[in-house]
Amino acid sequence: MKFEFDINYEEIKKLVEQIKQQVTPSQKDRERLKEIENIISERLRRRGLKFILGGSYARDTWLPEDADIDFFVLFDPALGSDGIGKKGLKELEEVVKDLNYWKNYAEHPYIEGMLNGIKFNLVPCADVPPGKWITSMDRSRYHNEYLLKKLNPELRGEVRVFKKFLKSNGLYGAEIKVGGVSGYLSEVLAVKYGSFVEILKNIVAWEQGEVVALEPYDYDPKKVFTTPVIILDPVDQKRNLALAIKNRVLGKLKVLALNFLKSPDVKYFAERQPVPEDRTSNNVVMISFKAPDLVEDIRWGMYYKAEEAVRNAFKNSGYRIIRSTVSEYDTWVTIAVFLEFDKRNFEIRSGPSVYFPENVIKFLKSHRYVWVENDMRLYSFEPGKYVDAKDVLASLKINPINWGVPAGISKNFSEGFVYRYSELEGSSLYFKSAKNAFASLFETLAVDSNK
Amino acid sequence: MKFEFDINYEEIKKLVEQIKQQVTPSQKDRERLKEIENIISERLRRRGLKFILGGSYARDTWLPEDADIDFFVLFDPALGSDGIGKKGLKELEEVVKDLNYWKNYAEHPYIEGMLNGIKFNLVPCADVPPGKWITSMDRSRYHNEYLLKKLNPELRGEVRVFKKFLKSNGLYGAEIKVGGVSGYLSEVLAVKYGSFVEILKNIVAWEQGEVVALEPYDYDPKKVFTTPVIILDPVDQKRNLALAIKNRVLGKLKVLALNFLKSPDVKYFAERQPVPEDRTSNNVVMISFKAPDLVEDIRWGMYYKAEEAVRNAFKNSGYRIIRSTVSEYDTWVTIAVFLEFDKRNFEIRSGPSVYFPENVIKFLKSHRYVWVENDMRLYSFEPGKYVDAKDVLASLKINPINWGVPAGISKNFSEGFVYRYSELEGSSLYFKSAKNAFASLFETLAVDSNK
Repeated sequence: MKFEFDINYEEIKKLVEQIKQQVTPSQKDRERLKEIENIISERLRRRGLKFILGGSYARDTWLPEDADIDFFVLFDPALGSDGIGKKGLKELEEVVKDLNYWKNYAEHPYIEGMLNGIKFNLVPCADVPPGKWITSMDRSRYHNEYLLKKLNPELRGEVRVFKKFLKSNGLYGAEIKVGGVSGYLSEVLAVKYGSFVEILKNIVAWEQGEVVALEPYDYDPKKVFTTPVIILDPVDQKRNLALAIKNRVLGKLKVLALNFLKSPDVKYFAERQPVPEDRTSNNVVMISFKAPDLVEDIRWGMYYKAEEAVRNAFKNSGYRIIRSTVSEYDTWVTIAVFLEFDKRNFEIRSGPSVYFPENVIKFLKSHRYVWVENDMRLYSFEPGKYVDAKDVLASLKINPINWGVPAGISKNFSEGFVYRYSELEGSSLYFKSAKNAFASLFETLAVDSNK
Repeated sequence: MKFEFDINYEEIKKLVEQIKQQVTPSQKDRERLKEIENIISERLRRRGLKFILGGSYARDTWLPEDADIDFFVLFDPALGSDGIGKKGLKELEEVVKDLNYWKNYAEHPYIEGMLNGIKFNLVPCADVPPGKWITSMDRSRYHNEYLLKKLNPELRGEVRVFKKFLKSNGLYGAEIKVGGVSGYLSEVLAVKYGSFVEILKNIVAWEQGEVVALEPYDYDPKKVFTTPVIILDPVDQKRNLALAIKNRVLGKLKVLALNFLKSPDVKYFAERQPVPEDRTSNNVVMISFKAPDLVEDIRWGMYYKAEEAVRNAFKNSGYRIIRSTVSEYDTWVTIAVFLEFDKRNFEIRSGPSVYFPENVIKFLKSHRYVWVENDMRLYSFEPGKYVDAKDVLASLKINPINWGVPAGISKNFSEGFVYRYSELEGSSLYFKSAKNAFASLFETLAVDSNK
């Protein structure tokens, strides 16, 4: 089913030009980065290291607001994945030992550093031909090669506008925290569809199980991948670039693309703060705890598992959840749950059919109030095990691992604070993460009523 | 599946003897009724009316606490059902015109009267052989004939004990208000099973769809009736005596019979008042209204329909009902609903899949807060349409017929009072029916914990 609607191309074109102006790096921006590039390149060369510049800087698709420089340093594949991880990283530490740097890892370890306010990454990888991957970073140089061939200045501008659109709406980045669209994928889509407006049009039109490919492929991706959209990596057709995208993020992207095409507006390129209503604050129950000292993907994986545990605990206690969220700010994490009702007094229990006397006797013995309804079953009620929604979280704190909170944050969780948003004190250390969580519960895709 | 358990026959026998003593009419009781029998019989004879004494009085199975005398007055079947209803009733009014009497009807009109504190019924029916029924009352004399042949003094005592058991637990009477076991059916079961304890044993053992018959039958009752138990009328094998029994009443009877056999106790022969807990009173929402001036079966049919309407209104508003009830006292009726939670603040709304842009746009336009969950559907929430449970009833009062409240009581319903039990003032006119309703919500079949 293709959806047809009028698109005001003129208006979008004007808007796109306006955004392009904003997001194109200035000469000064470029000079600042070039300087860092030169410093690091010189150091790598001095140590005889072979490297390739990668990422959005290399391809000139970066946004001034989050510029960083990626160096992919090539090591002998004979070292193996672990060897490159250890020896390679050691070598690279030597390169930056006098600088402000730290070790980091996604699937593979690398070095992050900061120089004159500009972030740079030194990523060790294996010097291998396409398809002979040893580390998860080996593809990157070929991504770079591929895109450098396909991109032109015009397309680079469109990529920047699309990235800005994603970023403004919390959809940018493949990291677990976001579960959104990576920078590389943004560029792949631009190459595929040719412009910002065509990217959006196609995203709106993607059907369930849509396969998006730039290059020919010789297998059925639908048999391998079950993601709502499958986007093949042109550098490695067996790889699905949409694997990291959460369903709800893709859904949000589809709705936002639709909204924008129907009513283009500059607001889609600005971060918007939802304005929660006060009357909801009593129905929002939160737990705020100290963030563990773990890398982002690891700890966010844990936060989402903990959020699931919290949801299950509420469901088990008979509450209905409207929406839940996780927010992190500085060293505090807040999991917030928005409930249909704030206090649950009783719980109905359904018992056996009256045709099973053994079970009837058991039920009668273990319940105080028992009666029969017209379905010929016994029923009872009990004072809600957790009368107050806060008690659900308080109880979860006692043994969070049992409920599915990951061991790595269970202690933090246990020492967290439980409260209703309405009880939040402005002076709390965790105020900002709680406020963000509350705001994100009331984020909306709804179109303005005056449109 | 037969359920086996130890029955203390000795203890039950002692208890049954004790109850028999209580429920056997005294010589004085008998004399009082005999006197009325003589007066009415004499009047009927004087007018040349042919009649048969029926009911529990004729069969000596009556309980002293609710003695009444039934006269089945036989008219020429040529009059037809309507003729007997009109002419027959007129004739009978002549018989009692100087007495305290009133017209009543179940399926067919009859006369009720009161003399020296004893109720008597004059029921016009057709003088027809079995199976040639003209009015719904024509079977009664054959019921009488049948049972008089089958009952003996020992069995009569067992019938009284069973009736007392039923009565004490609100299970006695085929009228719509109760939906329980009629006097006639009690006697049929006693004839079938031979004693009070055997009746209970068999009731516990009844399977879903059990067919109980005293006489041979030549069809498959399961193809005609879908009641949980089918009890054939020995006088009319096409008739199912269990048709009037509500499922929940039968279920309650099965559970009570089981309870009693496991732990015989005199308390099963006394009316018990449940003691509701105070903490529940805020979750019990009620409407009390004036009872309409209609015969019992008619108005109780309406009450139950209204109760269903009230339940539906709460369900529609997202509330979860634990239990509901109707109570009538004097001229007041109370429908009471016991809810899991007392205030509902928000309602979650699920919207279309993101794959249907037309529907997405519609949903976005009509909702203020919209987001996408991992199932790729849109969601929203709205302030609960009825924030307060009382508002559900208040809204129902505006147009009760639309919700299924029968027209015959819709005005009474509309003029009713809505309140939480916790707000009930002791001085209210409707206090007693409300108190009864509240108590019946907390009636329980649970066995005592100290047994």
